[in-house]
Amino acid sequence: MGLLAEDRYFDPDPSVRRVARALYEETRSLPVISPHGHVDPRILAEDTPFPEPASLIVQPDHYVLRLLYAHGVALEDLGVRSRDAGPFEADPCKVWQRFADHYYLFDATPTGAWLNYELHEVFGITEPLWGDTAPRIYDEIREKLASPEFRPRALFERFNIEVLATTDAATDSLEHHRAIRASGWNGRVIPTFRPDALFRITDPHWPVTVDSLAVGDYSGFINAIAERRAYFKSVGATATDHAVLAPYTAALSQDAAERLFRLALDGKAAADDERRFTAHLLMEMARLSLDDGLVMQIHAGALRDHNTLIFDRFGPDKGGDIPVATEFTRNLRPLLNAYGNDAKFTLVLFTLDESTYSRELAPLAGHYPAVRLGPPWWFHDSIEGMRRFRERTTETAGLYKTAGFNDDTRAFCSIPARHDLARRMDANYLAGLVARHVISENDARRMARALAYDLAKQTYRL
Amino acid sequence: MGLLAEDRYFDPDPSVRRVARALYEETRSLPVISPHGHVDPRILAEDTPFPEPASLIVQPDHYVLRLLYAHGVALEDLGVRSRDAGPFEADPCKVWQRFADHYYLFDATPTGAWLNYELHEVFGITEPLWGDTAPRIYDEIREKLASPEFRPRALFERFNIEVLATTDAATDSLEHHRAIRASGWNGRVIPTFRPDALFRITDPHWPVTVDSLAVGDYSGFINAIAERRAYFKSVGATATDHAVLAPYTAALSQDAAERLFRLALDGKAAADDERRFTAHLLMEMARLSLDDGLVMQIHAGALRDHNTLIFDRFGPDKGGDIPVATEFTRNLRPLLNAYGNDAKFTLVLFTLDESTYSRELAPLAGHYPAVRLGPPWWFHDSIEGMRRFRERTTETAGLYKTAGFNDDTRAFCSIPARHDLARRMDANYLAGLVARHVISENDARRMARALAYDLAKQTYRL
Amino acid sequence: MGLLAEDRYFDPDPSVRRVARALYEETRSLPVISPHGHVDPRILAEDTPFPEPASLIVQPDHYVLRLLYAHGVALEDLGVRSRDAGPFEADPCKVWQRFADHYYLFDATPTGAWLNYELHEVFGITEPLWGDTAPRIYDEIREKLASPEFRPRALFERFNIEVLATTDAATDSLEHHRAIRASGWNGRVIPTFRPDALFRITDPHWPVTVDSLAVGDYSGFINAIAERRAYFKSVGATATDHAVLAPYTAALSQDAAERLFRLALDGKAAADDERRFTAHLLMEMARLSLDDGLVMQIHAGALRDHNTLIFDRFGPDKGGDIPVATEFTRNLRPLLNAYGNDAKFTLVLFTLDESTYSRELAPLAGHYPAVRLGPPWWFHDSIEGMRRFRERTTETAGLYKTAGFNDDTRAFCSIPARHDLARRMDANYLAGLVARHVISENDARRMARALAYDLAKQTYRL
Repeated sequence: MGLLAEDRYFDPDPSVRRVARALYEETRSLPVISPHGHVDPRILAEDTPFPEPASLIVQPDHYVLRLLYAHGVALEDLGVRSRDAGPFEADPCKVWQRFADHYYLFDATPTGAWLNYELHEVFGITEPLWGDTAPRIYDEIREKLASPEFRPRALFERFNIEVLATTDAATDSLEHHRAIRASGWNGRVIPTFRPDALFRITDPHWPVTVDSLAVGDYSGFINAIAERRAYFKSVGATATDHAVLAPYTAALSQDAAERLFRLALDGKAAADDERRFTAHLLMEMARLSLDDGLVMQIHAGALRDHNTLIFDRFGPDKGGDIPVATEFTRNLRPLLNAYGNDAKFTLVLFTLDESTYSRELAPLAGHYPAVRLGPPWWFHDSIEGMRRFRERTTETAGLYKTAGFNDDTRAFCSIPARHDLARRMDANYLAGLVARHVISENDARRMARALAYDLAKQTYRL
Repeated sequence: MGLLAEDRYFDPDPSVRRVARALYEETRSLPVISPHGHVDPRILAEDTPFPEPASLIVQPDHYVLRLLYAHGVALEDLGVRSRDAGPFEADPCKVWQRFADHYYLFDATPTGAWLNYELHEVFGITEPLWGDTAPRIYDEIREKLASPEFRPRALFERFNIEVLATTDAATDSLEHHRAIRASGWNGRVIPTFRPDALFRITDPHWPVTVDSLAVGDYSGFINAIAERRAYFKSVGATATDHAVLAPYTAALSQDAAERLFRLALDGKAAADDERRFTAHLLMEMARLSLDDGLVMQIHAGALRDHNTLIFDRFGPDKGGDIPVATEFTRNLRPLLNAYGNDAKFTLVLFTLDESTYSRELAPLAGHYPAVRLGPPWWFHDSIEGMRRFRERTTETAGLYKTAGFNDDTRAFCSIPARHDLARRMDANYLAGLVARHVISENDARRMARALAYDLAKQTYRL
Repeated sequence: MGLLAEDRYFDPDPSVRRVARALYEETRSLPVISPHGHVDPRILAEDTPFPEPASLIVQPDHYVLRLLYAHGVALEDLGVRSRDAGPFEADPCKVWQRFADHYYLFDATPTGAWLNYELHEVFGITEPLWGDTAPRIYDEIREKLASPEFRPRALFERFNIEVLATTDAATDSLEHHRAIRASGWNGRVIPTFRPDALFRITDPHWPVTVDSLAVGDYSGFINAIAERRAYFKSVGATATDHAVLAPYTAALSQDAAERLFRLALDGKAAADDERRFTAHLLMEMARLSLDDGLVMQIHAGALRDHNTLIFDRFGPDKGGDIPVATEFTRNLRPLLNAYGNDAKFTLVLFTLDESTYSRELAPLAGHYPAVRLGPPWWFHDSIEGMRRFRERTTETAGLYKTAGFNDDTRAFCSIPARHDLARRMDANYLAGLVARHVISENDARRMARALAYDLAKQTYRL
């Protein structure tokens, strides 16, 4: 892959490209709103320099690991440690070299686009990465990381981040968030309440987790959740997040909920119990959101840890999550009938099943006041993925029922790359509408700004 | 949104646009064939002037209501009356103002494209609609509506409608259709036989509806249906239409059908009984179509009245229908095995699940002589929706197994806008094929005419 | 349809077209690797001249038959013989005339594109085919077929085929393949092991088929399969192929497998038994592939012989196979967990359900070392189908986890047309990436060659 062309990702048609460039110029310098992501808040609490390129760029990024693994590169050879404490590549230079040797595999993928941006824009590298240039580039980045301008908070400011939301377990102490607030640094880093572990009643750890909340019965459990939400809110949270395989929702009677809760405490909950309990808790989360104003997010359809061998040896988030077909229309009906007509409630929906964009999600967002469409998620956070999302949702839901952009990343240094790609693709999409006289250039300007900045800020109440 | 550009909706590439424009020029003045829609025939029977813009353009159009509602505008505030006779906005000027204030929400939606056409081409408005211009535009339209040139029949003629099919309950008297025929006016307005209510045996009203047909048993029921079909045909009908959640078909034995019929008369039919009875009746409808020559249409996959609150307060058709994943291959097999090999039978299929275009519908239409593909329906009757339909069906089914265009509208004044959009998009699609040398410009000319006029006329035997 | 434009199928945008043309120029003359197809090896074993155009071009091609049948042309009138020995058109000139009269139906379909290439490039016809030109073109082709340059082996060489794989029943003697090898001709024609019939334990012929393998019990059955695989390999095979409705995989215990095997031998296996036995045998095939190195292919999702009337009268492969929605994530999990982490195993996946491209297949190929994505299959082996495949899989799986091109054809003379179309479409796709600065022109050159030649050769170990 070459270096970064100024007009990259824009359609080549001159009448589209001209408008795309103009729209992008108006949004490229807007502050970054990052309302959903997975950056470790410790990085910004401690603000210690990043050690070296491999541990910063290669090892924490499951997009990078998955494609290298798919081509036969062992995770150990990338320096990833297995749970069984087996051998692994301890020399980061060798990890970096291996990564560079395979860098061409990322050609034409979004990971490639982000990495190119990160190397060339964030780190100022002026030659392409491949086997021969790997050592020089490694040294250049390592050297830069040691300088004050590349410490996390300095980068946060250089990245022009207005707000960065992390994702945190419901039982988290939020110590790093508190430390950031106490530090006097005025970067806005906020937590997001993610209680998934509290919903997984078949997990052997569940009774322990619940025990830590010191609740006796189901009512106490719900109260404890409400209290944790209040605590998160006090530390800046404006949203919750829920990862489910199917977005099934259905209210249980108080008695039935209590019975399931006790069954779970006894360690006897089965898969269908968990499914029903989760369906009920999603309803409860919507109810609590109406009370406390936290925006509710649902990420549906990832079958986690599909690859048992990788999960057993290396744990979660190593690239082995695979999507499944997902149903929203029937599954969300109970929740939307109960709470979806209330414009004070906001529910942001994410899918990995693109066939639901035009069939289910856009019609739901184009009708229920509470529903917003989250940006294209994960595998679809890409040039073609963003194009498909806009083409399949805009005509039914309109642009103004979408939630702006989320980078959803664990890789701190990839944040500007991801927002830049999204702003380019939205500018390009709108430019295509202008060139076909679907909207005027004035409409497009207003929309481009909304997609790059206003909608995320408004949706997440920031 | 601005006014109407002459080359709107065409690809900006000059080699595509030139051909698109040429093809469109050959079809733009062809008469309108409207073989499937929901215009109230009373409008044309009575030919009284439309009263004012809000009740003409805003209130009857669930495309308009749904997006405004999704953005928090209460239906009452748009002048929609609830069943419980609660308060509503009675001043149409205020309804119009509210609509205009939110008009930008329709940017980049097909509703926006149709409304722009309607305002500027049908009503000759020369400034864009927004909050400030709302009162002036309201007055201008109201004034025009009072003139003879804007009475329904005059518009029908100005719209160059060759034939307009309405959709009518099986038990309808068709009084308005008869009145039109008796009036001496020679506009062709024909009914379509839609017996859905007769299939819904779990509905408490079903026994009453069936009672009105004066039938004693299942055979009498089928005979009564056949007679109603004959009556519709005598008043001009050439087609039937069937809305089903799943297009499940399966023949019952005469005994089983009789048993279900009696169960239903006793008010004891359950959901699965209705599902089986409907599956059987679809087979019967195909059989009757082979007898009487009425073209059979199936619209599958809309979960009606998803939003219970809106349905309970305002009734059906207020924007709360949401699609579900739909299966055709297995569901239609019994019907197609029984009747699909007979080219004298025509079955037009519509879907809201675009994943079935290339996977199921195009393969079925590209094999069974009886099958035709209906145009992209509802949420997909749009610029991108039409593009996806052609791109995903043409290569497998060919163009000549599609059914031309249907406007499917309740909004009489939107008819020319919808046909114009379809003609533009088909011209543009064909121009893209010409520019890539897939077809010659001569082929494209023949195809453009087929899509704009011939195929609808031929499919619906008009 | 006109004759063949030099720049056909390329995007009209000049910056795309220029690069597409350049990339295509570098791949158009590469040898043809045809690792999956259905050409009858007898043709090349015997090398007798093809008799005349209708039996060469019309009758063996179910793409041609299906669309003509869909438009009401009876198969008998195309010279296809029914099983009941009813009347059929015995005059090939009349069959050809009928085909030519309806040739416009193939406009804008891939069949039309292939036929145009075949007529103009393979047979040197210089006028378009339609009713009036049919007799002259018939004579011209028949005359050419009689010349030595048009005998099968001569065409094989002219088509520049480096290797051609056929598809053969597990019990096949492979006599034609042996004859080719024994003949001294050095065209490489290899078999593919397709044991579907051995999996269909509900088929009344199954006990007979198994009997021919002379096995007593389940272990003997598996051993016999392993031996047949070894035999295929000795005659040149490098791959197996498996057609299943759902790609369900699940291991049975040895006992359970033995019980199912005996049940089947007794002719008592039910549909669910076959489903479980097939799921188990797919696991076994993967295990054997790890032993013998044969590449495993799965073609999932075709509901065969949907049209019972056509199947009963004319047998299989007459165009009546219709796709169904297909699930890979859960269905393949057992197989991939057992064997998918081993890079020595190769599993090539094909689907007719395009919604699985981005949702399931690309994520699986982008993670498991063993998985490769087969090219767009059957109805999707087309201009738009190829575009959709690349756009929906590349960003997640990368290009280098795809398997290059397969022509999958029964129609020998269509082979060059199909590879030419694929090379054009891949060149065009890559050119679009270059024009948008996603990849460099150098990257694109490497990728174009991989897609046209290297990946097929490497994937199928040729």
